[in-house]
Amino acid sequence: MSVIDINCDMGESFGAYRLGTDEEILKYVTSANVACGFHAGDPATMFKTVKLALEHNVGIGVHPGLPDLAGFGRRNIDITPQEAYEMVVYQIGSLWAFVKAEGGNLQHVKPHGALYNMAAVNKGLSNAIAEAVYKVNPELILFGLANSELVKAGEKIGLRTASEVFADRTYQQDCTLTSRKLPNCMIENDDDAVAQVIRMAKEGKVLTQQDVDVDIQADTVCIHGDGTHALSFAEKIRKTLEESGITVRKISESL
Amino acid sequence: MSVIDINCDMGESFGAYRLGTDEEILKYVTSANVACGFHAGDPATMFKTVKLALEHNVGIGVHPGLPDLAGFGRRNIDITPQEAYEMVVYQIGSLWAFVKAEGGNLQHVKPHGALYNMAAVNKGLSNAIAEAVYKVNPELILFGLANSELVKAGEKIGLRTASEVFADRTYQQDCTLTSRKLPNCMIENDDDAVAQVIRMAKEGKVLTQQDVDVDIQADTVCIHGDGTHALSFAEKIRKTLEESGITVRKISESL
Amino acid sequence: MSVIDINCDMGESFGAYRLGTDEEILKYVTSANVACGFHAGDPATMFKTVKLALEHNVGIGVHPGLPDLAGFGRRNIDITPQEAYEMVVYQIGSLWAFVKAEGGNLQHVKPHGALYNMAAVNKGLSNAIAEAVYKVNPELILFGLANSELVKAGEKIGLRTASEVFADRTYQQDCTLTSRKLPNCMIENDDDAVAQVIRMAKEGKVLTQQDVDVDIQADTVCIHGDGTHALSFAEKIRKTLEESGITVRKISESL
Amino acid sequence: MSVIDINCDMGESFGAYRLGTDEEILKYVTSANVACGFHAGDPATMFKTVKLALEHNVGIGVHPGLPDLAGFGRRNIDITPQEAYEMVVYQIGSLWAFVKAEGGNLQHVKPHGALYNMAAVNKGLSNAIAEAVYKVNPELILFGLANSELVKAGEKIGLRTASEVFADRTYQQDCTLTSRKLPNCMIENDDDAVAQVIRMAKEGKVLTQQDVDVDIQADTVCIHGDGTHALSFAEKIRKTLEESGITVRKISESL
Repeated sequence: MSVIDINCDMGESFGAYRLGTDEEILKYVTSANVACGFHAGDPATMFKTVKLALEHNVGIGVHPGLPDLAGFGRRNIDITPQEAYEMVVYQIGSLWAFVKAEGGNLQHVKPHGALYNMAAVNKGLSNAIAEAVYKVNPELILFGLANSELVKAGEKIGLRTASEVFADRTYQQDCTLTSRKLPNCMIENDDDAVAQVIRMAKEGKVLTQQDVDVDIQADTVCIHGDGTHALSFAEKIRKTLEESGITVRKISESL
Repeated sequence: MSVIDINCDMGESFGAYRLGTDEEILKYVTSANVACGFHAGDPATMFKTVKLALEHNVGIGVHPGLPDLAGFGRRNIDITPQEAYEMVVYQIGSLWAFVKAEGGNLQHVKPHGALYNMAAVNKGLSNAIAEAVYKVNPELILFGLANSELVKAGEKIGLRTASEVFADRTYQQDCTLTSRKLPNCMIENDDDAVAQVIRMAKEGKVLTQQDVDVDIQADTVCIHGDGTHALSFAEKIRKTLEESGITVRKISESL
Repeated sequence: MSVIDINCDMGESFGAYRLGTDEEILKYVTSANVACGFHAGDPATMFKTVKLALEHNVGIGVHPGLPDLAGFGRRNIDITPQEAYEMVVYQIGSLWAFVKAEGGNLQHVKPHGALYNMAAVNKGLSNAIAEAVYKVNPELILFGLANSELVKAGEKIGLRTASEVFADRTYQQDCTLTSRKLPNCMIENDDDAVAQVIRMAKEGKVLTQQDVDVDIQADTVCIHGDGTHALSFAEKIRKTLEESGITVRKISESL
Repeated sequence: MSVIDINCDMGESFGAYRLGTDEEILKYVTSANVACGFHAGDPATMFKTVKLALEHNVGIGVHPGLPDLAGFGRRNIDITPQEAYEMVVYQIGSLWAFVKAEGGNLQHVKPHGALYNMAAVNKGLSNAIAEAVYKVNPELILFGLANSELVKAGEKIGLRTASEVFADRTYQQDCTLTSRKLPNCMIENDDDAVAQVIRMAKEGKVLTQQDVDVDIQADTVCIHGDGTHALSFAEKIRKTLEESGITVRKISESL
């Protein structure tokens, strides 16, 4: 039986600024990555998002980012592993408190944006992030790009990990995502995007830009919560995955 | 037998900026109030401060402040009770994670600066803060100015509370501190300051500026960690309290 | 001949967060109040907004706010007059540089939100703000609520001032706005709102909630750039003011 | 006749946090680089620093940094040239306003920390910074590491530039500074440090770590304002430079 988790970033509003469609997208996802005030989000948004996520019974994850609200956490900052450790510990705690106050539990940690991308290829950062998660709570599941250093670091330290795949991105033969700077990096057609995920979930394979298959672990697929297109795609992928016999459930029920 | 706790704010450095004498003052105090990045402090400082506090076996407290690094959390901001609730939940969590990662436990929560002062007289804010503490962890001890709304709010919701007194401040007949805008607000002489605390601890009384005694509960006394004078006063008050037969120990061992 | 300026806050986006309809609303206004990064806005947004405003040939104003992005500058912060002076000087300069780089000129300064409201009734703050404007550039026009301390402070120091009125708010007999906490604070009907402005511009009078007329100076009327309703109201008020024989032009062409 | 300017970073305090010895070091320097609130500094500090600098009749420079107070602007952030342009325009304006309010003039712009280092080797960033300076005020002098891309960018766009040298750092044969990660990067002995600057000023040459001389332009030498050692070194270098017949004066009097 094939199983997959669908995760989405949320809680990205800040003060008077609204972002995303959290309330609607929660119907289609099984795990929510909640921003913690560094790259997006604030205490008021975290409070609301945690309550919403609990009402929808999705897995709640910490979504720690770089301290760069102006850049939405998408600009690389040359931090040390020690700094990565500290900012991840801090952010896990901040979200934990809201979840605890509402009687819930944290499920996972998924770094955001530049922190996610840097950790995917940097052993020092990925070890520091994995250690932060492990020391605060070894029961938390660490999300990372399939085949990345982050997943390896999580496994090494003894965490359960979830290998993440992307529906709308193409892959290279070494299992990395095609750079956004290259043509053909995106899969524009929704049916193709969903088909790619179905094959990853069922067969554990993806056809790369080099026209050869590679093995890929697909524990969770990331979908987007903003953009006019987001909701219709979310509905489609959830429905099609289920219709094709794949069980869609939160990662903590599978690992 | 008279007992008192000595608490001090610490972990107030930020980035390249150093503040306080945490390592030295920790020899004389029994509880540490650790800043959480809103009015002072940052993840790196929290990490170091928590380790230091655990090494010295002092009670570790969350020191939540207003989001005003430029004003060091000392300027009143017209926040709602809901905002107070959210910012206290967030800050408790952020420090909790560092303490958890090091295998320790949180002891207490003491609001900082303007948040402390506003909560002392504002029922809405004090109820919100007490609720935040209670919902995240009902075992935490809430510190508030003796006789303040904050202490009352803590008791009402079912928290253990610690009534805080000040060594170097004079008192009014209604048990409030003499405003800093008035003359005679400070006790300049160290011996007088210590003597005031000894009397509060032993007799539960303080002589007010109106030359009449009032009853005061003195569970914990606040001392300062910065200023050239801070260390010598800390040493003196610790020594003199003990010599006068008062047991100085962290609040969690008394309540 | 009656003349009025129509001003609108803009440049309130921040990083990935979009706010307002600057490009569309600029067709209907004659003066733009540009946020400077304290309560909203960032360097990238200021750059774009200044270029847009120059293309539309509207008067460009500095819109200094309290340093409170999370609260959108709407929460009172207990700042000193000296702090108000410094934060207004800073923000004037930051916007000036973008205008200078594009070959334009600053027209005015209008404090934002809580800073505007506090200055309306606080002599110390209003004098400090007026001094900041005057010392950086005595040619700048200071916008303030009609009859407020801010307008008086501007006149006293020798600045040209613009008395601001609101279309959709009701007035009290002392010429203040009806508090938002009271019923009937808003004028919900668009025609009534426009009619109030026309009467203020033509007759210099407004009917208060006490059913008596008071004198009011209406140099500039504030309209809003966000909300679904904003654009249609902007178009309506511009058109109706002009059709009723009132000249709508930027304040620097009138004073 | 040999001439040199001595510059020092200042105005780096923030809120309750003190940094540097601005008041003392100003006796020995001829140009001051004033932080503008991104990597350090705040409006209150800028106000005080500008007044102090004017009293001491030193050249006042903008010291724009990356938006990273926690990292003191020393961590590389992967910004675009457009973002560099915008943040430099903003910061020039912010300081300009304080100088204008006091009746003074800006002399120069010297990027700080990681922005300075990135611009030294990155044409896109250095062109953007030079353009920002030029468009706000083409009379401003641009400071950059001798032989860097930043100096070249300034010259190309038509700015006056000042080539900066360091007293206490060793040089490589390609005229770059020896990396701080390598041994021998620092000149520990004060006399040797001063002697290096005297030779750079008089002969335009520096002995590199490869034991060969290279040509170097020394318009201004950077000294440090913090550290216990800073003041005595500042006094020594000022005195020794003058005793060896080098005229020490602010850069705007030489270019």
